Amino acid sequence: MAAIKVYGSTFTTATRRVLATLYEKELEFEFIPVDMRAGEHKKEPFLSMNPFGLVPAFEDGDLKLFESRAISKYIAYKYADKGTQLTGGDCKKTPVISLWMEVEAHQFDPAASNLTWELAIKPLIGMETDSAAVEENEARLAKVLDVYESRLAQSKYMASDCFSLADLHHLPTIHYLIGTQSKKLFDSRPHVSAWVADITARPSWSKVLATQNKQ
Amino acid sequence: MAAIKVYGSTFTTATRRVLATLYEKELEFEFIPVDMRAGEHKKEPFLSMNPFGLVPAFEDGDLKLFESRAISKYIAYKYADKGTQLTGGDCKKTPVISLWMEVEAHQFDPAASNLTWELAIKPLIGMETDSAAVEENEARLAKVLDVYESRLAQSKYMASDCFSLADLHHLPTIHYLIGTQSKKLFDSRPHVSAWVADITARPSWSKVLATQNKQ
Repeated sequence: MAAIKVYGSTFTTATRRVLATLYEKELEFEFIPVDMRAGEHKKEPFLSMNPFGLVPAFEDGDLKLFESRAISKYIAYKYADKGTQLTGGDCKKTPVISLWMEVEAHQFDPAASNLTWELAIKPLIGMETDSAAVEENEARLAKVLDVYESRLAQSKYMASDCFSLADLHHLPTIHYLIGTQSKKLFDSRPHVSAWVADITARPSWSKVLATQNKQ
Repeated sequence: MAAIKVYGSTFTTATRRVLATLYEKELEFEFIPVDMRAGEHKKEPFLSMNPFGLVPAFEDGDLKLFESRAISKYIAYKYADKGTQLTGGDCKKTPVISLWMEVEAHQFDPAASNLTWELAIKPLIGMETDSAAVEENEARLAKVLDVYESRLAQSKYMASDCFSLADLHHLPTIHYLIGTQSKKLFDSRPHVSAWVADITARPSWSKVLATQNKQ
C-alpha cells in the first residue's frame, strides 16, 4: 500500500493539480475517488481530512494536508531529488517561482476558475452559463494574459527557462479553457500560445487526463 | 541606503503584510510611498516593477519582487536567522504552515478582502457600501471562521503553537474588519477572538500602523 494517498475527484482542477505534481515527480501513490455527486466531500469521514469540504485531501504517512497548492509545494520540496525539478532546479529562482505562483493564485485563477465554471463545468452538469460573468472574466483574464505575453517573451516559462510549479499550477484551468470559447484569449497571444502548447504536451498531463475516478 | 526597498501605500493590506514581515524580522528597509490617488501605481516607472499595477513592489539588491505573500515568504526564508522565526521555528511544521497560508489566500481572503473593501475602504473614499455583497461575504466568512474556531481549539496559532506567516498574513484584513460591523464574527468565537487579540497585539503590528505614507 502506497504511503501517499490522494482523496479526490479527477473532474476537479484542484485534484488534477496534485496528480500532475505526483506524475512529474514519478511517485507511487494511491488514488481514492470521492463521490462528489453523492456529496461525500461534505460528510464524514472526508470532513476530518479537510474541514472545508473541498477535494483533494492528501496523506503521506502521518502527514495530512489539503489545499492543492500547499500539497504540490510539499511534494516538490519533500521529493526534490525525484523526477522533474519543480522548484527552480538549475535555474535557482525560488523567490521568482514563488512570485509567479502567487500571480497564478491571485491574478490568473480568479478569472480562469470562474470561466472554467461558467463555460466548462456548468454545461457538463446541466446548468445555464451566466454570459455577463463570462464577459467580465474574459476581460479580466485578457489583461492578465497581456502581462503573461510580455513575461513569456523574456523567458520560456513563467519564472525562468525551466518548467516549475509556477507553470504546472496553471494546467488544470488552462486545459478546461482551451476547450471553450476562451481559447481565443490564449491563441491570440503568440508567446502565451506556445507556452500553453508546451505545458499541455507534458507526459505528466496526459497521465492526469488518463486518470479516472473509477479505477 | 538600505538594500531592501518597499514601494507601496500604507493604506493597503498588501503593503502592510510586507511591512509586518519586515518588522518581525527586525530588518532595515526604505519605504517609498506610491501616490495611489494620483494613479502612480498604474504608470511608469511603477509598472516596470509590477506589470499588474498593484502595490507593493519590493527590491532586495538586484532581486525585484511583487505579490505580498511571495515577498513575505522570501523575507522569512532569506532572513531565517533574524528576528522572529516565521516558517515554523521550533515547531518545524513547514508543510502545515504552507497549508494554512493557502487557506488564508483561498478561503479567508476572498470574503475578508471583499468585506474590507465594502465596509472599511468604500466609506473612507466616499463610495456606497453594497449591502448584498456584505451579507453574502459575512456568511462566507462565518463558515471559514467556524473551521478556524475548531482549529484554534487544537493549537494556539493556525499552523502550530508557534506564530508564523500563516497567522501574519491575516493581520491586515483582520485589522480593518475589527473596526467594522464584521467584528461580531470574530468576537462570537472564543478561540478566534483570543487569536485575534494575540496577533494584533504584536509590537510589529503597532509599528506597521505607525508607518505613514509621508515619511
